[in-house]
Amino acid sequence: MKKINVAILGAAGVLGQRFIERLENHPTFEIAALEDVMVGKRYEDATNWRLGERMPAWVKDMKIVSTDSLSLTDASVVFSALPGGVADKIETDLAKKGFFIISKASDHRMDEDVPLVIPEVNANHLGILEEQRKKRGWKGAIVTDPNCSTTIVAMTLKPLWDQFGIERVVVSTMQSVSGAGYPGVPSLDIIDNVVPYIGGEEEKMIIETKKLLGDGKHDANLKVSAACNRVPTLDGHLEVVFVTTTKKAGPAEARKAFQKFKGLDYPSAPSEPIIVTDELNRPQTRLDRNAGNGMSVVLGRLREDEAMGLAYTVLGHNTIRGGAGGAVLVGELCHGKGYI
Amino acid sequence: MKKINVAILGAAGVLGQRFIERLENHPTFEIAALEDVMVGKRYEDATNWRLGERMPAWVKDMKIVSTDSLSLTDASVVFSALPGGVADKIETDLAKKGFFIISKASDHRMDEDVPLVIPEVNANHLGILEEQRKKRGWKGAIVTDPNCSTTIVAMTLKPLWDQFGIERVVVSTMQSVSGAGYPGVPSLDIIDNVVPYIGGEEEKMIIETKKLLGDGKHDANLKVSAACNRVPTLDGHLEVVFVTTTKKAGPAEARKAFQKFKGLDYPSAPSEPIIVTDELNRPQTRLDRNAGNGMSVVLGRLREDEAMGLAYTVLGHNTIRGGAGGAVLVGELCHGKGYI
Amino acid sequence: MKKINVAILGAAGVLGQRFIERLENHPTFEIAALEDVMVGKRYEDATNWRLGERMPAWVKDMKIVSTDSLSLTDASVVFSALPGGVADKIETDLAKKGFFIISKASDHRMDEDVPLVIPEVNANHLGILEEQRKKRGWKGAIVTDPNCSTTIVAMTLKPLWDQFGIERVVVSTMQSVSGAGYPGVPSLDIIDNVVPYIGGEEEKMIIETKKLLGDGKHDANLKVSAACNRVPTLDGHLEVVFVTTTKKAGPAEARKAFQKFKGLDYPSAPSEPIIVTDELNRPQTRLDRNAGNGMSVVLGRLREDEAMGLAYTVLGHNTIRGGAGGAVLVGELCHGKGYI
Amino acid sequence: MKKINVAILGAAGVLGQRFIERLENHPTFEIAALEDVMVGKRYEDATNWRLGERMPAWVKDMKIVSTDSLSLTDASVVFSALPGGVADKIETDLAKKGFFIISKASDHRMDEDVPLVIPEVNANHLGILEEQRKKRGWKGAIVTDPNCSTTIVAMTLKPLWDQFGIERVVVSTMQSVSGAGYPGVPSLDIIDNVVPYIGGEEEKMIIETKKLLGDGKHDANLKVSAACNRVPTLDGHLEVVFVTTTKKAGPAEARKAFQKFKGLDYPSAPSEPIIVTDELNRPQTRLDRNAGNGMSVVLGRLREDEAMGLAYTVLGHNTIRGGAGGAVLVGELCHGKGYI
Repeated sequence: MKKINVAILGAAGVLGQRFIERLENHPTFEIAALEDVMVGKRYEDATNWRLGERMPAWVKDMKIVSTDSLSLTDASVVFSALPGGVADKIETDLAKKGFFIISKASDHRMDEDVPLVIPEVNANHLGILEEQRKKRGWKGAIVTDPNCSTTIVAMTLKPLWDQFGIERVVVSTMQSVSGAGYPGVPSLDIIDNVVPYIGGEEEKMIIETKKLLGDGKHDANLKVSAACNRVPTLDGHLEVVFVTTTKKAGPAEARKAFQKFKGLDYPSAPSEPIIVTDELNRPQTRLDRNAGNGMSVVLGRLREDEAMGLAYTVLGHNTIRGGAGGAVLVGELCHGKGYI
Repeated sequence: MKKINVAILGAAGVLGQRFIERLENHPTFEIAALEDVMVGKRYEDATNWRLGERMPAWVKDMKIVSTDSLSLTDASVVFSALPGGVADKIETDLAKKGFFIISKASDHRMDEDVPLVIPEVNANHLGILEEQRKKRGWKGAIVTDPNCSTTIVAMTLKPLWDQFGIERVVVSTMQSVSGAGYPGVPSLDIIDNVVPYIGGEEEKMIIETKKLLGDGKHDANLKVSAACNRVPTLDGHLEVVFVTTTKKAGPAEARKAFQKFKGLDYPSAPSEPIIVTDELNRPQTRLDRNAGNGMSVVLGRLREDEAMGLAYTVLGHNTIRGGAGGAVLVGELCHGKGYI
Repeated sequence: MKKINVAILGAAGVLGQRFIERLENHPTFEIAALEDVMVGKRYEDATNWRLGERMPAWVKDMKIVSTDSLSLTDASVVFSALPGGVADKIETDLAKKGFFIISKASDHRMDEDVPLVIPEVNANHLGILEEQRKKRGWKGAIVTDPNCSTTIVAMTLKPLWDQFGIERVVVSTMQSVSGAGYPGVPSLDIIDNVVPYIGGEEEKMIIETKKLLGDGKHDANLKVSAACNRVPTLDGHLEVVFVTTTKKAGPAEARKAFQKFKGLDYPSAPSEPIIVTDELNRPQTRLDRNAGNGMSVVLGRLREDEAMGLAYTVLGHNTIRGGAGGAVLVGELCHGKGYI
Repeated sequence: MKKINVAILGAAGVLGQRFIERLENHPTFEIAALEDVMVGKRYEDATNWRLGERMPAWVKDMKIVSTDSLSLTDASVVFSALPGGVADKIETDLAKKGFFIISKASDHRMDEDVPLVIPEVNANHLGILEEQRKKRGWKGAIVTDPNCSTTIVAMTLKPLWDQFGIERVVVSTMQSVSGAGYPGVPSLDIIDNVVPYIGGEEEKMIIETKKLLGDGKHDANLKVSAACNRVPTLDGHLEVVFVTTTKKAGPAEARKAFQKFKGLDYPSAPSEPIIVTDELNRPQTRLDRNAGNGMSVVLGRLREDEAMGLAYTVLGHNTIRGGAGGAVLVGELCHGKGYI
């Protein structure tokens, strides 16, 4: 089968690097173009490679291209790792030209006619694409996936929402430094320290969760609170979750709901999207972030809670499930559903 | 004025070291005896000194003594840094013999006739000592102060409780490794990691908070949830707090309540027990833990909260305010009120 | 081909865990027995598994056995991850009974008739085994491999020694906490800190290097200095090396010698034992420790040195190349040479 | 006594902040002007204050000024915390205008007629100022102090040099992230990592050491090697030192030389510039960096060395002794000697 050529926007950054890692030897997609600001440079020379494994040899000599020079004959699908703010216009222009954009940027996430998708959670939201194309007169399209911290908790809220309903959720996060990109968080700010604030993050968690749990037209009706904290870890966001369900649900019933939550049949989809653990002191950031090849979330400390009803802790890999891995899975879903 | 001689139990541990630091040049108390397991050794030889400042010269040659050999003529007041479990019998025995014990151990905290005291919060609970002595037939007494994580949040709950009432509180902590003593947390467990569980800690936060906010006879009637996490910081516990007050209180009213919360007139008491900050990204563990000589808590990110009503973040120094400093302040209070 | 059954001594510790990891699906060896102090327990219950990947399922139900109960019909080869001091007698007793011991413990390393082997460096030292058996009247044997920090630098010294001779070497190390086992280094000792001393480590580097570079009978004649430091990293020892060669050698000649240093043809042997890098700021502990599946060392910053002649920096994985991986490679060598 | 008004160049950076900290309540100097790029802003608004203690209240409302607007009537002495490269022209221009510059920048350090001074080491080098002024026709002057890593080791080399002579020195450093300023080292680069290279640092250590130990006209004749490494610590540079002295010196003789090394009688000068410790595992970065109010260096692990003769480990505070504190002491020296 001929593979589908794809371009990566923002390819030299940490998130762009993860895209390259996740798309290496991919059965459906093939990297055909790498976009970033240092146009014309060899990828190796334009990049401060930050992943543990060495840069793949085949990518070193690829030349960085500009968005203007991208052509549909080169690549029809675009994974965007552009920073928020920058992404808006570039993605819109490319979608007009006919590119199918899968974006990690926040700029279009809350547009009414742009799907915000976690494949296991709300694949049906892709249906809105028809309206998007009609309304905007685009040949291409924009699909987004959520902020990393939202993705991790939303995967665990979905089965509760479907089975019991949710009145209110309180989330407190402990997020890794890779979430801020590179150079990102200065070491002077985070060694022996916790920073109790990440700009825009709490708002994203609140509004994106409601869109994700909604029916694709209207947001879900629940109350969400979030406190986002940066801690001295490299990868993996750990989130403490307190939930009041509409229909009372004890830990045993919640566990069943989590375990019944189904994996999809795509190359990047983990067989077990939510891994429930009984070990008292798990999930731990360093030990569990690579579960399911970085695509599962690990849920533990599930217990009855005095003030809210139900409490648990969940961990996910922010730059894989909450980053490039999640977006690639969205791409696979779009391909599987015939949108690509 | 002649100073009051005091003994320290568990003097060689990290908490014992903090007691020595906080009692150096104290206007009321004078260290007369150091107890620990390595009886007979010089203090310097028995101790792996872990504080940033060097061990004071005068303490190096003091000989470690056993609890059996403690005599009332040497020291009538005892600060106990004993580990939970070990403390129970030793403290009881010493109280019988006439010693006035101020204990950091959890063993007697929840005894009905033992005061659990944060001086700014519930000094009046000391009144129960009369009953304790009568009932137990002791000449001495046991007074306790709370677990470190409880102390920090309880100081901020008190003004809300008094002014608005509290229905429910949800707390998620990010606690430093010094909270586990020495050797405590192995570095292999915590570098680039978060551990989402600290044995017994959540239960303590729930029951102690209710006792502290109670009237001295009965626990306060509110719902408390806690999730306790260990993060890679050295000192300082950061706690995210969500509160539903009985009478609705916005951030502005809460702020006023926090700022009116009064400091006491004792040597270790900070003039501002709760420091409220408006900087978006404060309090931070490393930058704020020494506020008020380690005896203030720093509260920030005060905001309206969708799911619970009110949210904020508070930081305190776990081995000073939540440890030796807090206990010394209890001692000063007991002295000021004539119990010592 | 029938695999050779092996036992692991000290199987529940961090090093024992690495042995299990490295021997999983091994073409020659099959784990038949796990020894540790908690005799009779299921392996899963006896172990605080500290590696990033989860404990393999097949090992969970294996029962911990005692050294007394080990029988030659169960396993004829023994990998020892015992602590120094404990290893001496147990290994001797087992060798008497006929077991072939490959030991990571330091106890027998410097015995004249015990080979201390890095397969790429001094495979010929195995010849001394004949004398060992004759002299000691053993059916079994003891082979050792070096201390982790020694292994890493010795691999780079060997090609220099062979080609140019070495007069003096100065090594300053920056070692990870996993080198101290588990629980090992308390987090209070190492967060935001460097500890400039590791008990016994410098002596081992000095004497073991001389034995490794010797002819199997006599130590090599060179001067070695070492300063061993503990830094806040998890895995990987970084070592700064200054060398005065006997025959003058510039960086270009040294580079050729390093690159000609040959890999062996065994399952655990990396094709490139010494990877030379030109990137100015490499090797880095976290980014390079897994090179060659953790079995290569990465050498960089090769340069002329004013005071000593030649300088470079080398990194190796302390619990893989310097630990279980290195010992498994010794086992493969012994098997390949017909000793097993 | 009327204090001398001083200006700080680069006042908003981390080093500038340290200057403010060290000059608060200084008996001789008074801060009269703060220079940085955000001209016109209040100091508080222009600064991301990174020190543990809060920004002093009196400094918050000072307005940032430009170098052009600095006038001799405001401040005649200038402490420069400018970055290398930027400093060259600005400092030259100000010296021409009559300002007395004490600079932490490297730009003029190696100029023949510019003194490079550690007060305890080579106060006599100030004599060259006469030549500087004559040759350059300046009313003002430029005095520099060394790079942080150089300062720390040079203080310990001086007594050895004077008493025994030195043939060769090998230094391997473990440097904190604060050495790179703010934002400086990205946390993604240094958590769980060591970086074996710091641009320009090794060259500075080599050439500056020779100038410092020279007679003020000619460099000292010794061989110096350096390897500079960045480790995950906040403050404090730990340096492993191997020395071959000209006249043989054992550890006992070296210790005497270190202990005889005299402190000066200036406000910032520590009574004991070199603190020698016998504790096996000291100096440690976090525990010892504040010795002598951050102005002493702590030397330990003094021992005979097989390859080089003598070995030891020394620690100093890089942004105090190796930074603002060192420069303020140079200012005090210049004032004491009548140059200011």
